[in-house]
Amino acid sequence: MTVAVIGVGLIGGSIGLAGRERLGVPVHGHDADPGALAAAVAHGALDAGFDTVAAAVAEADTVFVAAPVGALPAALDAVLAAAPEDCVVTDVGSTKRAVVDGREDPRFVGGHPLAGAETAGVEHARGDLFEGATWYLTPTPVTSGVLYERLHRAITGLGAQPTAIDAAAHDRLMAGVSHLPHVFANVLVSQAAEALSADDERLPATGPSFRDATRVAGANSAIWPDIYLANRDALVEGIDATIERLQRVRGDLAGADAQAIADWNTRAADDRRRLLERELAGGPVHELRVSMPNQPGVIAQLALELGRAGINITDMALYPAPDLRDGVVALWIAGDEPAGRAEALVAGLGFAVARP
Amino acid sequence: MTVAVIGVGLIGGSIGLAGRERLGVPVHGHDADPGALAAAVAHGALDAGFDTVAAAVAEADTVFVAAPVGALPAALDAVLAAAPEDCVVTDVGSTKRAVVDGREDPRFVGGHPLAGAETAGVEHARGDLFEGATWYLTPTPVTSGVLYERLHRAITGLGAQPTAIDAAAHDRLMAGVSHLPHVFANVLVSQAAEALSADDERLPATGPSFRDATRVAGANSAIWPDIYLANRDALVEGIDATIERLQRVRGDLAGADAQAIADWNTRAADDRRRLLERELAGGPVHELRVSMPNQPGVIAQLALELGRAGINITDMALYPAPDLRDGVVALWIAGDEPAGRAEALVAGLGFAVARP
Repeated sequence: MTVAVIGVGLIGGSIGLAGRERLGVPVHGHDADPGALAAAVAHGALDAGFDTVAAAVAEADTVFVAAPVGALPAALDAVLAAAPEDCVVTDVGSTKRAVVDGREDPRFVGGHPLAGAETAGVEHARGDLFEGATWYLTPTPVTSGVLYERLHRAITGLGAQPTAIDAAAHDRLMAGVSHLPHVFANVLVSQAAEALSADDERLPATGPSFRDATRVAGANSAIWPDIYLANRDALVEGIDATIERLQRVRGDLAGADAQAIADWNTRAADDRRRLLERELAGGPVHELRVSMPNQPGVIAQLALELGRAGINITDMALYPAPDLRDGVVALWIAGDEPAGRAEALVAGLGFAVARP
Repeated sequence: MTVAVIGVGLIGGSIGLAGRERLGVPVHGHDADPGALAAAVAHGALDAGFDTVAAAVAEADTVFVAAPVGALPAALDAVLAAAPEDCVVTDVGSTKRAVVDGREDPRFVGGHPLAGAETAGVEHARGDLFEGATWYLTPTPVTSGVLYERLHRAITGLGAQPTAIDAAAHDRLMAGVSHLPHVFANVLVSQAAEALSADDERLPATGPSFRDATRVAGANSAIWPDIYLANRDALVEGIDATIERLQRVRGDLAGADAQAIADWNTRAADDRRRLLERELAGGPVHELRVSMPNQPGVIAQLALELGRAGINITDMALYPAPDLRDGVVALWIAGDEPAGRAEALVAGLGFAVARP
């Protein structure tokens, strides 16, 4: 097996490292940016860098195209034009219909590893980036069975869990759990900014809900507009459905229908619990809210104590009080037993702890 | 001065403690729940508990009504009927028009301290809960100047910063920065739950955007439906405005208008930065993204190191990778200089650190 990687940023570079370290195969590569290509070779992500796509894929039987979403269609076409007949070609783009539809080549399988979107650049690449990660693959009726099996095996070898999914279902899924939350965050900040300037008010200490809900607002403008556009069909569907939901709530509020609002809120609590229980391993996730002074070292004390007890913090969020002098730390702990021990430990440290 | 507190949960109890400790005045109180009243006396939040509203306010010149939002109008009416003529009466509800409109009594001033929504119950009450907190007051043309001044002084004495605001402006503000984010979170989880069941798909490792955006989904059903209903006018306005925004984005997506989408995303990034810079003291807030193994003790090591260097973490969020074995920690640090030192320190610990 010889692997080629086209586009050697964080994802492409990590595929190269994992290919060399875990699959033990030679990895060839190309990047439109000669500096990035040289950095990938220097980082050990490639055995050899090539000036052209054609040279990089000439000896490959498995090609990963890890170009940014906006450059992906052209990069894929170039690879498919140059790759050998018995070569499987995949991509790592975060939307799939835009690359799969109309590209009916038995050698091509769309792909999307759920890993590593937080940092960029080959300097952050790691050979274990895909360990345990879901890696979606979108085979179609024209996909070669032999080539699909080879790709599946390669991805397992990189440490990930290949999961076949229809391209349209994948895009709906991503719209719901990733792209739509980004759109909502953008809308919320703009709404708040306008409301504040209309009232000529200072922003109050907005508290956790606003910060959490808008953390991803205005996400990296070099990447996200392309993602929105590439998944625009599913996103438009998702926006239409959420507008319908908002209009139902609006109606219940305008009519002061207390029972409908209470039922709606309870359903949302149930939905969230079910979704996050499915997501996170280790049993139901418990939230603990700990009141503590917001001083250097206090979070450390808390985390250290739980660490010593072997309790893993699945997620955490710090909500400073308006004066930034004290606040509440929310901790999410998976599993009934660890959560119970965590609660007792935190109380033993002298902090007030509650389960909301 | 004699203070009376009607409703002695977290907020009422903290007012009692701060009144006794900081103002050095006697605090009388009443709660509809005799057990809560006894607990407040035992906790030291009240000098004396009374069986009736009338008895509790008989000797008071300053009354805080800290009943839940749903019970607030009736509690306020009972207090205003029983309170002496020269007595200022305020509340602590999180929406203001519903209590201020139609209650045109020179003794009444609506209030809303931005503090302490995370835990409930008098056992978590603290005398320093309001230290540095914004405390909105909504005086009207009929409000007595003498009584307003007394209330202002009392609130300053509790440690908070009284800020006068029009009741309608207050409710629009809260709709934008708190209630609307809660509504959006509810809509997002229900949307995702439905999309997943339609495709019969497992929930993928949804990643940080979904979890952050839906952290407050289905918030405490004992409280939030009443808050939504009490602020329904501003919330309906806010929902209408966000539906308009969503429809504009939808149009730009459907028309594949790349420039419009890019501009919209950049504006959201600007809006978020501006809003959070106003909120958080200490200069512009910098986000650092640190890649690290998701093991007990590692967060502690990081926080401890920053603590030793006197660098305060304004906010943090842990994004576990799908396998929960490693992940990214986002840190928000206020001020250019501390953020720069933090970045160098973290890199010195051997973790990859990036500014997104």
